[in-house]
Amino acid sequence: MARNLRKAGHAVTAYNRTRSRAEELAAEGASLASRLADACQGEAVITMLADDAAVEELVLGEGGVVSGLRSGAIHVSMSTISVALSQRLADAHAKAGSGYVAAPVFGRPTAAAAAQLSIVAAGPTVYVERSRALFEAMGQKTFLLGENAAAANLVKVTGNFLIAAMLESLGEAFALGRKAGVDPALLLDILTGTIFPAPIYKSYGGMIAEQKFEPAGFKLSLGLKDVRLALAAAESLNVPLPIASLVRDHFITAIALGRGSLDWSALALVCAEQAGL
Amino acid sequence: MARNLRKAGHAVTAYNRTRSRAEELAAEGASLASRLADACQGEAVITMLADDAAVEELVLGEGGVVSGLRSGAIHVSMSTISVALSQRLADAHAKAGSGYVAAPVFGRPTAAAAAQLSIVAAGPTVYVERSRALFEAMGQKTFLLGENAAAANLVKVTGNFLIAAMLESLGEAFALGRKAGVDPALLLDILTGTIFPAPIYKSYGGMIAEQKFEPAGFKLSLGLKDVRLALAAAESLNVPLPIASLVRDHFITAIALGRGSLDWSALALVCAEQAGL
Amino acid sequence: MARNLRKAGHAVTAYNRTRSRAEELAAEGASLASRLADACQGEAVITMLADDAAVEELVLGEGGVVSGLRSGAIHVSMSTISVALSQRLADAHAKAGSGYVAAPVFGRPTAAAAAQLSIVAAGPTVYVERSRALFEAMGQKTFLLGENAAAANLVKVTGNFLIAAMLESLGEAFALGRKAGVDPALLLDILTGTIFPAPIYKSYGGMIAEQKFEPAGFKLSLGLKDVRLALAAAESLNVPLPIASLVRDHFITAIALGRGSLDWSALALVCAEQAGL
Amino acid sequence: MARNLRKAGHAVTAYNRTRSRAEELAAEGASLASRLADACQGEAVITMLADDAAVEELVLGEGGVVSGLRSGAIHVSMSTISVALSQRLADAHAKAGSGYVAAPVFGRPTAAAAAQLSIVAAGPTVYVERSRALFEAMGQKTFLLGENAAAANLVKVTGNFLIAAMLESLGEAFALGRKAGVDPALLLDILTGTIFPAPIYKSYGGMIAEQKFEPAGFKLSLGLKDVRLALAAAESLNVPLPIASLVRDHFITAIALGRGSLDWSALALVCAEQAGL
Repeated sequence: MARNLRKAGHAVTAYNRTRSRAEELAAEGASLASRLADACQGEAVITMLADDAAVEELVLGEGGVVSGLRSGAIHVSMSTISVALSQRLADAHAKAGSGYVAAPVFGRPTAAAAAQLSIVAAGPTVYVERSRALFEAMGQKTFLLGENAAAANLVKVTGNFLIAAMLESLGEAFALGRKAGVDPALLLDILTGTIFPAPIYKSYGGMIAEQKFEPAGFKLSLGLKDVRLALAAAESLNVPLPIASLVRDHFITAIALGRGSLDWSALALVCAEQAGL
Repeated sequence: MARNLRKAGHAVTAYNRTRSRAEELAAEGASLASRLADACQGEAVITMLADDAAVEELVLGEGGVVSGLRSGAIHVSMSTISVALSQRLADAHAKAGSGYVAAPVFGRPTAAAAAQLSIVAAGPTVYVERSRALFEAMGQKTFLLGENAAAANLVKVTGNFLIAAMLESLGEAFALGRKAGVDPALLLDILTGTIFPAPIYKSYGGMIAEQKFEPAGFKLSLGLKDVRLALAAAESLNVPLPIASLVRDHFITAIALGRGSLDWSALALVCAEQAGL
Repeated sequence: MARNLRKAGHAVTAYNRTRSRAEELAAEGASLASRLADACQGEAVITMLADDAAVEELVLGEGGVVSGLRSGAIHVSMSTISVALSQRLADAHAKAGSGYVAAPVFGRPTAAAAAQLSIVAAGPTVYVERSRALFEAMGQKTFLLGENAAAANLVKVTGNFLIAAMLESLGEAFALGRKAGVDPALLLDILTGTIFPAPIYKSYGGMIAEQKFEPAGFKLSLGLKDVRLALAAAESLNVPLPIASLVRDHFITAIALGRGSLDWSALALVCAEQAGL
Repeated sequence: MARNLRKAGHAVTAYNRTRSRAEELAAEGASLASRLADACQGEAVITMLADDAAVEELVLGEGGVVSGLRSGAIHVSMSTISVALSQRLADAHAKAGSGYVAAPVFGRPTAAAAAQLSIVAAGPTVYVERSRALFEAMGQKTFLLGENAAAANLVKVTGNFLIAAMLESLGEAFALGRKAGVDPALLLDILTGTIFPAPIYKSYGGMIAEQKFEPAGFKLSLGLKDVRLALAAAESLNVPLPIASLVRDHFITAIALGRGSLDWSALALVCAEQAGL
């Protein structure tokens, strides 16, 4: 993402808690910030971090982004974080006089490298508009959700919930097919050749048909994290998500059995084992 | 389907328990069978009926297809029926010396009219091969599953289970989105413009986003029937299908509340109501 | 039960498809029927059989109880059977001019031996009243449910569903306790010493705390059968039973893993294994 | 509980954030603390508060119990709080040199008034032993769980989860019974007269049979809180609790429909409505 920003002509200053990772970018011509504050001097700071804890520390902590940004500069938060934390970030920036745009992404690392991400952006219009050149440098499509920044995070976790629901459903379907003696590769051909002709069904379906859950494109433990974010957002709005509850239970079983580092499509392994396969 | 067979040059004799429906085809040139036995004189009999009970009566009942077919003629069963009944039909035909091919279809009525069905066929190779000209006249693709006829029915109910799972998942996602103030049409655009670019997500997602469940393309009560068929096939193979169990419960709630005649995407209505929408 | 009828002074004629079992009773003084019809000559026939299939064959089959009873004699059906079959039996007896009382029981084999069963009886009042002397000979309490015989079967399967729900709940609770390092025996003492001071919590809880599921007091495969009966009755009345659905899935997993012959409290084993224990 | 301590001869100093409530006790002879610190001068401080947030503020906050207790004095935490918070309290007290005993209770307000609570206590033996005189003044039974204080909280939330599971199960059973035309009062008599002769089945079953969920003995919103605590404890130990997940979803539905202030047995109302009652 940083590379694509530079390619589009933006001046980029890199900061990473693991300095060597920022140095890779510096070797290619980005400026190197040795302290977070040094990365907060421009028009915008983009954060892309693992989880709520990391974002909370770097943004709201002492010497964090909120305190480091100059007035009117923008924090573009692209991590997959909780709706509640996104709301807290919005409040903190509003109070500090800085801008906040939530802009989580859909797309795998290869899509990020190819500037083919899909970006779901929300926040005060003035800041979103000023961020659009950044989105165009990193992604192929930007969806604008309106003034409420946290809504973008809700859409992101909803999307990941739907993928997890698909994985669990496919896992059950393939367990049934296998016990009935149907060749998994053929079952996949039929499903993706008729009802579900979508790349995501083909790629994850292929992993499930072959029962090959390594290397992990997205770790099962992260899948649990995202479903938990969906459930938390839903609970705060009084929305039951029974499929998410069920998927959460299966993720937990997978982790209890030592499979947290497999790809999240290994939900299908839980389904297979519960059928005695 | 009958029209497409005639277009492809096959001689068709039509029989329907509601005579007027067969007469429509007769008006276009098909022969009219006033009794079922008269429709069983050719090389193959194709059945396309509502449910197990109808198929059982017409095929295994007195004067039914099994007793009416001459030796070596083929019964091509294209209805969505239970795996258990399909197995019984296979056994009955084997005993009677007639052929049996299970060939359920994926595709809406418009696909059937346009000879664009996808057909999943299974049964003894000799009979499947002799049936291929029929499949080519009615469909665009035929998937061959092997000698075990009932496996084709299992794949069909598995496919319908996966659609129901998708409907429930979308229903939960849109309930969450709506309570968070996200425009349903925009949420649909994002989902189908990123993760799920498949026609089935667009069409059913559109019904759910607009909460427009009439007219029914496929009635909710039929959806329950098919999920029940998936659960029954799975139980006989000792395969738990927790998503199917959950979907079944929601179908039952929908029916208890008087919505059995809505489109099966009205599963989303249950989700919305359980969120207080 | 037959012994207790004799002790109370009733003349008993025994019939069992496995003749040796009836001979045991004959050795104690009961008359021995070599054919079912010979057991249908008295005022009442009591059936206590394993499942729907056995009852259907012996009652509705050729030479069965319905055809063997003389006019006005009573068939007292004490087996745990489906609500639907009980209704069919009621209809068949009504048509044949014989009486029908559904009278399933709560209680273990030891309670049956001690004439301590609880009996839930329903059917036309005249027949229920004439059956009371029989109930008093076999049980300690009789609950009268009214004219609709099948309602008694519904109450019986509802009771067994509630036991299964309790077993699953305890299984989850003990899995949690064990992973938290709480001594299972102490957890059981606390639960039965505070909230749940009922013998059924103590006995099944003890099996779960010790993870000792053999010998089976009631086989897990029979537990699945009874939960399936509850789900079937509920579906015909459009009542979702999500806990029963969940328990059914866990029973199926247990059976898929080869535990169908363990006691049904081995539901707790599924819970433990899904927690990685 | 404070009254019973005084009756047993203990000197009691009362503190409540709502001063008037402490004044009631002062009127009866207890000392009145106008600041929290004034309540921390004795040998032990007992806290009984609504939830994690209240406990966290009063115990860990500025001027809180941890900082107010003198060395070797004991904090006896009797609230129903999360396992994670209890662990944090244990750590904080250990660091501060004060004692910590977790001692949540089972029993309704009437049991508390009558000194009939059941107390589940855990913590370092020396502190638990010194607290026993307090437990004897407030309860009828004390269960000792060992050195790990948080285990007592885990047992408490496990117990409340089991009650919620029972409520949901009964709710489903009574929905089925009602749709089958079985008199709810009679169904309750049968269940509690046979399988479940426990006061808790009688009292909650009575509320469900009569569909009388007010006044609330324990609010539904608090039930959700406790099931959430069980799920959180279980997740941190990698234990799936599918029944708890399901119950949580139904609690959320009840709250979405405006029933958070009813008694938690109103889970049965969700069951009834989902059956179209």
